[in-house]
Amino acid sequence: MKLGIYGLGRMGANMARRLSRGGIEVVAHNRSAGPIDELVAEEANITAAYDLEQFIAALPAPRIVWLMLPAGAVTGEAIEQILPKLSPGDLLIDGGNSFYQDTLARAVQVQEAEVHYMDVGTSGGVWGLKNGYSLMVGGSKEAFALIEPAIRVLAPSADHGWGHVGPVGSGHYVKMVHNGIEYGMMQALAEGLAVLRAKKAFDLDLAQITELWRDGSVVQSWLLDLTAEALAAQGQELQHIAPVVADSGEGRWTAKEAIDLGVSAPVMTLALQMRFASQDAEGYGNRLLSLMRNAFGGHAITRK
Amino acid sequence: MKLGIYGLGRMGANMARRLSRGGIEVVAHNRSAGPIDELVAEEANITAAYDLEQFIAALPAPRIVWLMLPAGAVTGEAIEQILPKLSPGDLLIDGGNSFYQDTLARAVQVQEAEVHYMDVGTSGGVWGLKNGYSLMVGGSKEAFALIEPAIRVLAPSADHGWGHVGPVGSGHYVKMVHNGIEYGMMQALAEGLAVLRAKKAFDLDLAQITELWRDGSVVQSWLLDLTAEALAAQGQELQHIAPVVADSGEGRWTAKEAIDLGVSAPVMTLALQMRFASQDAEGYGNRLLSLMRNAFGGHAITRK
Amino acid sequence: MKLGIYGLGRMGANMARRLSRGGIEVVAHNRSAGPIDELVAEEANITAAYDLEQFIAALPAPRIVWLMLPAGAVTGEAIEQILPKLSPGDLLIDGGNSFYQDTLARAVQVQEAEVHYMDVGTSGGVWGLKNGYSLMVGGSKEAFALIEPAIRVLAPSADHGWGHVGPVGSGHYVKMVHNGIEYGMMQALAEGLAVLRAKKAFDLDLAQITELWRDGSVVQSWLLDLTAEALAAQGQELQHIAPVVADSGEGRWTAKEAIDLGVSAPVMTLALQMRFASQDAEGYGNRLLSLMRNAFGGHAITRK
Amino acid sequence: MKLGIYGLGRMGANMARRLSRGGIEVVAHNRSAGPIDELVAEEANITAAYDLEQFIAALPAPRIVWLMLPAGAVTGEAIEQILPKLSPGDLLIDGGNSFYQDTLARAVQVQEAEVHYMDVGTSGGVWGLKNGYSLMVGGSKEAFALIEPAIRVLAPSADHGWGHVGPVGSGHYVKMVHNGIEYGMMQALAEGLAVLRAKKAFDLDLAQITELWRDGSVVQSWLLDLTAEALAAQGQELQHIAPVVADSGEGRWTAKEAIDLGVSAPVMTLALQMRFASQDAEGYGNRLLSLMRNAFGGHAITRK
Repeated sequence: MKLGIYGLGRMGANMARRLSRGGIEVVAHNRSAGPIDELVAEEANITAAYDLEQFIAALPAPRIVWLMLPAGAVTGEAIEQILPKLSPGDLLIDGGNSFYQDTLARAVQVQEAEVHYMDVGTSGGVWGLKNGYSLMVGGSKEAFALIEPAIRVLAPSADHGWGHVGPVGSGHYVKMVHNGIEYGMMQALAEGLAVLRAKKAFDLDLAQITELWRDGSVVQSWLLDLTAEALAAQGQELQHIAPVVADSGEGRWTAKEAIDLGVSAPVMTLALQMRFASQDAEGYGNRLLSLMRNAFGGHAITRK
Repeated sequence: MKLGIYGLGRMGANMARRLSRGGIEVVAHNRSAGPIDELVAEEANITAAYDLEQFIAALPAPRIVWLMLPAGAVTGEAIEQILPKLSPGDLLIDGGNSFYQDTLARAVQVQEAEVHYMDVGTSGGVWGLKNGYSLMVGGSKEAFALIEPAIRVLAPSADHGWGHVGPVGSGHYVKMVHNGIEYGMMQALAEGLAVLRAKKAFDLDLAQITELWRDGSVVQSWLLDLTAEALAAQGQELQHIAPVVADSGEGRWTAKEAIDLGVSAPVMTLALQMRFASQDAEGYGNRLLSLMRNAFGGHAITRK
Repeated sequence: MKLGIYGLGRMGANMARRLSRGGIEVVAHNRSAGPIDELVAEEANITAAYDLEQFIAALPAPRIVWLMLPAGAVTGEAIEQILPKLSPGDLLIDGGNSFYQDTLARAVQVQEAEVHYMDVGTSGGVWGLKNGYSLMVGGSKEAFALIEPAIRVLAPSADHGWGHVGPVGSGHYVKMVHNGIEYGMMQALAEGLAVLRAKKAFDLDLAQITELWRDGSVVQSWLLDLTAEALAAQGQELQHIAPVVADSGEGRWTAKEAIDLGVSAPVMTLALQMRFASQDAEGYGNRLLSLMRNAFGGHAITRK
Repeated sequence: MKLGIYGLGRMGANMARRLSRGGIEVVAHNRSAGPIDELVAEEANITAAYDLEQFIAALPAPRIVWLMLPAGAVTGEAIEQILPKLSPGDLLIDGGNSFYQDTLARAVQVQEAEVHYMDVGTSGGVWGLKNGYSLMVGGSKEAFALIEPAIRVLAPSADHGWGHVGPVGSGHYVKMVHNGIEYGMMQALAEGLAVLRAKKAFDLDLAQITELWRDGSVVQSWLLDLTAEALAAQGQELQHIAPVVADSGEGRWTAKEAIDLGVSAPVMTLALQMRFASQDAEGYGNRLLSLMRNAFGGHAITRK
């Protein structure tokens, strides 16, 4: 089996490596040549394609093109460029973190050219190369059959950790909600550990506690595993880490999607909103609250 | 009518003034003499009591002693000192912000001495002297009859803005929940204005908007009135105000009480928790979240 | 001054009445004739227009057409129909609850025809006819000058309760956020009263408490006024009211807008989400939680 | 090693079994005889004690008494009864779900009798017998040395899944917070799955999705494992499960403790509050909201 990967960032490059090591031939393309050269030097089953013409020409029919590009305009533009070069029956896959409604719109466009379109939501972060990727695949059965061997190689095992979850768009949708759950779980864990640490009277060792919870407790989870290991390695003071938490598209989309569906999802949403609060150096709402307290109660306003 | 006020902080002193101006005779006591002297110099119907003996001796039977002291130990100790000096049939009032369960416990103790005990939850802040205080009174009918004339003077009007809401403890209880509602309303208003301000494209004038809402809108409220006036006076940048919001006992007690009752009160509780977040300069929970993101996704940790 | 109102639902009809009574001539149009006839029979300054041709023909140049139609497709279609009949310099106003991004898109379309476009966010509900409407106006200065006399009549007073808050779109935007604040304030008040009621030991009278808070307390507000009056009129058991709370577009839009802006607005959002929970008769998420509790702890699952 | 267990409910009986199977001799006591007889019939290393005298007499000095009783009065009364029968140097352990402040108070009382006191927070539910229990132990080093062999047997493995986390009280404290985190994680997972299910267009199979997430995804967790298995076994409709979620002491205590510490823990708290909402068949707060909507906007109140 042979397929093309376009986009050799951290995710794309490691997925190419895992495919290569699993016996899948990969044609690797990227805007800049560096990551291509690096991969080709490393891996036996990877060949280089320095421009789109070369990339498409190197793929056997039906061509399988897997995009691993930043969501939004970059992915959209790549589809515009590649689609005219594909033939009916080829397969175009968006493996990035696209918003599922963008995916639905692009599917219409791609399918008008009689090209198959699939979306693969991918989780696994920096651990995917070694442990395999969690893969949530959306698309038709026919298209899925074309890509199934590669999915089984990318996944943690041939029979587990992946799923063809539904029609086009559903892969990105399931991945989006996965991240919403992730936000909520992370926030719950962080809040609990912050309470433990604030209880100075007990002088608790968070590395010890998170480590012991890894076996037998109800909160056993990969997030707990990673937290325990990081606390053991770095100590629990974390004075070198800024108290500012970034957020990405999926968390926002999940919160908004729940609102659109009229589903109450307060914990996933609040986990996002606490990240917003962490990012808000100005604290305008809080200034307003102090202003009000001063206005009705004469409470002092702490001047900066 | 004559009564004694013990505790001449901002609230106690202004309540003494309002009583005096309404024709009620007040014996004023305070730990330090300064506030006593100031009141006596100002007001015709206020006389001084520099120690507890003098204070009690100056009151006609049945004596009415109104405490306006900080909640907690200070109020508890004052009751310990005064109770032995009172006689059966006297009335002891806690007009401070005591936790209602403390009030219930103290009522048992006071009533064992055959002294009436009442609690008066008081709202109105710095505006009470001029506009009158909102008064939520707990206690027996008999005790209430003793104090009713003073209540009618302290209130915004003789017939409105006060209530004998139930037995001992209920006054502080109703005031406690009042403050919980206040927290939620304030937070809602602050959040909305923060959204308006963040919409840079419209370059909105928050003083104008809050002012126009004061008439005819659904969010008409005293908090809105004060906010509109403060924004008009100070401008909307608020760069001189620290984004740190203090909280007081009532907000915490309301949130915990709702949990004890098994009543879902997420908005009142969250308004409190956002104040906690504003006070949290360290942001330990947020550091943990960044630690986790780095551990699973390789996301950069912003070093301070 | 003469203007046309298209859409004689509760809001549109009452606004026409208030304009008429304030000396503004109104041409009234509606899809069905009934509401037109009713208004014309009642009000001296209102004339009927039974179709769009008649409606437009009855208006002097520059024509002022005020739409009071349901947000979404109905408003959009009305604009499609009316725009070709208007001339450069005319003014088209959307006084409904349109989403501000729809308003921005329509403004482009309308202004291409050299017709002015304005949006007026309107609050005041069933009380507007008597007390005046809170009006948040978006549009150009030139357009605003055309409509200002009518705004002053519709508002609670000529000088207060209205504002030209910014460019096209800002009127709907400010109204949207107004409703978000309203949701939060309502939820805070409802939670507090639910706590008071759950405290059976005090047997509190919510009509009394809400009434007393109306004067002197920090939570004084129109929502409190209405709640106090309704509780006094109906009793506090409310057994005749279903515990299901509807939501409308503005609350959802505000929550999503805050997410798009990256502004933490948890209380406004949660007030919406609690409404969703009230609407959720199935409770699927809760079934899942019971399933999990059973799976790890053997806790009984209550069978229906 | 020999120790006594008092309280043979689900947790206590299974812990006795695991100890017996691990070679620890157990004297088993319970208020009713049935569970004692059952255990003795099953397990080689368990002997019966039908009253407290027999129970204490059967234990070698220093005696180790492990209570597995319902938190609150039951545990408190058992300590009152047993303490006079113990001798200096004996060890009394509370392995139930006591509130840590009760534990601190009892520790003072027990230690006055020169008896060691320890608290062991225990997680693991119905799976503990087979997989081992997660054990969070609070107490002195001296006391811990007495019990360490039994801890190693009860835990998932001799070297993992348990910890001596700090002084008396800390074991229950860490367990309490563990449950707070558990609530938050569960709620996040339930919300996410509810969103997936509400997206009817994709017709998603929740058993498939939760199963695939178990390998490689960021939300890998024991709660996910159990959910996947339960959904596979029972189908995803869950029509046989009532949408009402019970809560227990630890979730409430964690939320209140965070408030006492001034730590913002909104997700753990909200997970609890959503359970309260699920339990609230009356929905009084929601009735109030409908009342308000009717009062200001004339919105229909759905009559039941």
